[in-house]
Amino acid sequence: MTFDHAARRARLAALLPGHEVPALLVTSAVNVRWLTGLASSNAAVLVRADGTALLATDNRYIGKARTLDVPVVEAADVAARLAEPGAGIEAASMTVATYRRLGRGLSGRLSAELVPLGPVVEELRAVKDDAELELLRTACAITDQAFADVTSRIVPGMTERELARLLENRMTELGADKPAFDSIVAAGENGAIPHHAPTGRELRAGDLVTMDFGARYQGYHADMTRTVSLGPPAAWQRDLYDLVAAAQRAGRHALAPGAAADEVDRAARSFIEAAGHGEHFRHGLGHGVGLEIHEEPFLGPSRTGRLEDRVPITVEPGVYLPGRGGVRIEDTLVTRAGGPELFTKTTKELLVL
Amino acid sequence: MTFDHAARRARLAALLPGHEVPALLVTSAVNVRWLTGLASSNAAVLVRADGTALLATDNRYIGKARTLDVPVVEAADVAARLAEPGAGIEAASMTVATYRRLGRGLSGRLSAELVPLGPVVEELRAVKDDAELELLRTACAITDQAFADVTSRIVPGMTERELARLLENRMTELGADKPAFDSIVAAGENGAIPHHAPTGRELRAGDLVTMDFGARYQGYHADMTRTVSLGPPAAWQRDLYDLVAAAQRAGRHALAPGAAADEVDRAARSFIEAAGHGEHFRHGLGHGVGLEIHEEPFLGPSRTGRLEDRVPITVEPGVYLPGRGGVRIEDTLVTRAGGPELFTKTTKELLVL
Repeated sequence: MTFDHAARRARLAALLPGHEVPALLVTSAVNVRWLTGLASSNAAVLVRADGTALLATDNRYIGKARTLDVPVVEAADVAARLAEPGAGIEAASMTVATYRRLGRGLSGRLSAELVPLGPVVEELRAVKDDAELELLRTACAITDQAFADVTSRIVPGMTERELARLLENRMTELGADKPAFDSIVAAGENGAIPHHAPTGRELRAGDLVTMDFGARYQGYHADMTRTVSLGPPAAWQRDLYDLVAAAQRAGRHALAPGAAADEVDRAARSFIEAAGHGEHFRHGLGHGVGLEIHEEPFLGPSRTGRLEDRVPITVEPGVYLPGRGGVRIEDTLVTRAGGPELFTKTTKELLVL
Repeated sequence: MTFDHAARRARLAALLPGHEVPALLVTSAVNVRWLTGLASSNAAVLVRADGTALLATDNRYIGKARTLDVPVVEAADVAARLAEPGAGIEAASMTVATYRRLGRGLSGRLSAELVPLGPVVEELRAVKDDAELELLRTACAITDQAFADVTSRIVPGMTERELARLLENRMTELGADKPAFDSIVAAGENGAIPHHAPTGRELRAGDLVTMDFGARYQGYHADMTRTVSLGPPAAWQRDLYDLVAAAQRAGRHALAPGAAADEVDRAARSFIEAAGHGEHFRHGLGHGVGLEIHEEPFLGPSRTGRLEDRVPITVEPGVYLPGRGGVRIEDTLVTRAGGPELFTKTTKELLVL
């Protein structure tokens, strides 16, 4: 499992003339990792339109950096070491303080010579190579397995927090680096809160319980949500589940290279709106996953752009009824020309525990 | 355990005339939490010099926000909703992209009307109130207890990764929200890497093993490091340990309200330099802890400023011998007029397991 970092840098270099810069100063940690293989908390890489590159990092990471296929310099202030007049900078991650400091270093006045650019590397990163897809498959398999192992242990009286801990421990036992994000476990009325943080609320018969969690494996993030029923569901719970499942299916079927981000969202959302629940689904349909848990592209009513081939992405509609509860169903998939490949294998039938 | 958020906002408001702004647009998530009590991933608060404030957050958090003691508005783009011409912004956390977008929204041209300011709220946050100190005491007590419970289970053949998982699981069992940061477990030669990420390397008799970890409790972060010996230490291991312990003690004793950040560093570093290991201790001596794991103030050779009273901070010298191993000893303490209070209670004698 190896990555061709030089090929990635070459693809970036080829884009720079279109942005009218001679070089891009890459300071986002995940972008540096993607372009060089160096995972660190203090590194930057300057990629030039001529295809050359220079990596900078501090003494903590310099040993590892010297093993990579890119020239490297040691520096504490890595961005200042690499900044060149006219270079592009990553406006979505560089802070105002850093931008002003670099500008002063170059010229003694405000950073007119550094050109703020949009998510250039992020858009390249959206399309994954085979090695990346394999890591995501593994991350999703660990997530599926943890769900299977833990659902058999869910009993009334267990708290949301205990259930979250079971899921997270099982994922690390199965080989995850760590949880991909803070797990959501929401029982009963808490299911109406899309981003609910687990509490001491005990699970009770009659609850719908939503679990949103995932494994990070070798830096790559899985994301999965299932809502289960503790005991036989009431009619409204079954209806809500079936509605979200139908919307989720429609969203998955709309995923294709060339599909517009807002149209995929619409494919799922229209089901929920037609059932009169448009006001109860107020987040986007999904997001890319990779070295970040939320990354390009994003699916939502006002998102622009079209999907490419080989883009791992989530599809996660939900309906949230204040005071009563909610349902969300989420898979991680990857766009392919012949139809999306499903990385999340867990059934989407309503599990009654 | 309650926080007086209104008093914190009043202290901030009183500082704004000195920065020549009528208001500060606070966008850092931890700063918003500290000023209002709202923990969220999308909120901002505008604090005006006249003492009034306005909080903005989106539909996910608006219910919680309405329970707080500050006026609130619902918005998706929280910074744009609150930005006012002439207001200060947090340059150390706001991105260049946001800054430019807000400026265009205000004026149709570059953000001349928004005034980049330094770590104004961060410097206020450095000094903790009683409720915060109590949470940090608890976070450190959980960390101590996890270390005590896990060290009895350390055996040769266990991997670095397994030991890290034991520590992290024990902390969450003891009531931690989650680990305060990615734990470091470094055995033998890996101990020479200050920020080593745990691997499948097995612990062996004759290893020094460094564990750097901590609990987050109700948002507050503990930080602790101990190096233990698997089996009786060699003479060079014992000598290295004694050196670092002496440096750590000197650093702790130098902590006092009014002490200069570089002088505290020097108190510890001079021991290590005198032993000929100056080149083997290349990071700062310590950092503040609170709602962030690394926050103001920082202790290091080129750090400026003086410590105040009631500032929780780490003291963590280390010596790292490439290819051989290393030792680091770290406590979390708080500055007090009568001498620092030690939050990390675990012994600093060399444990031989």
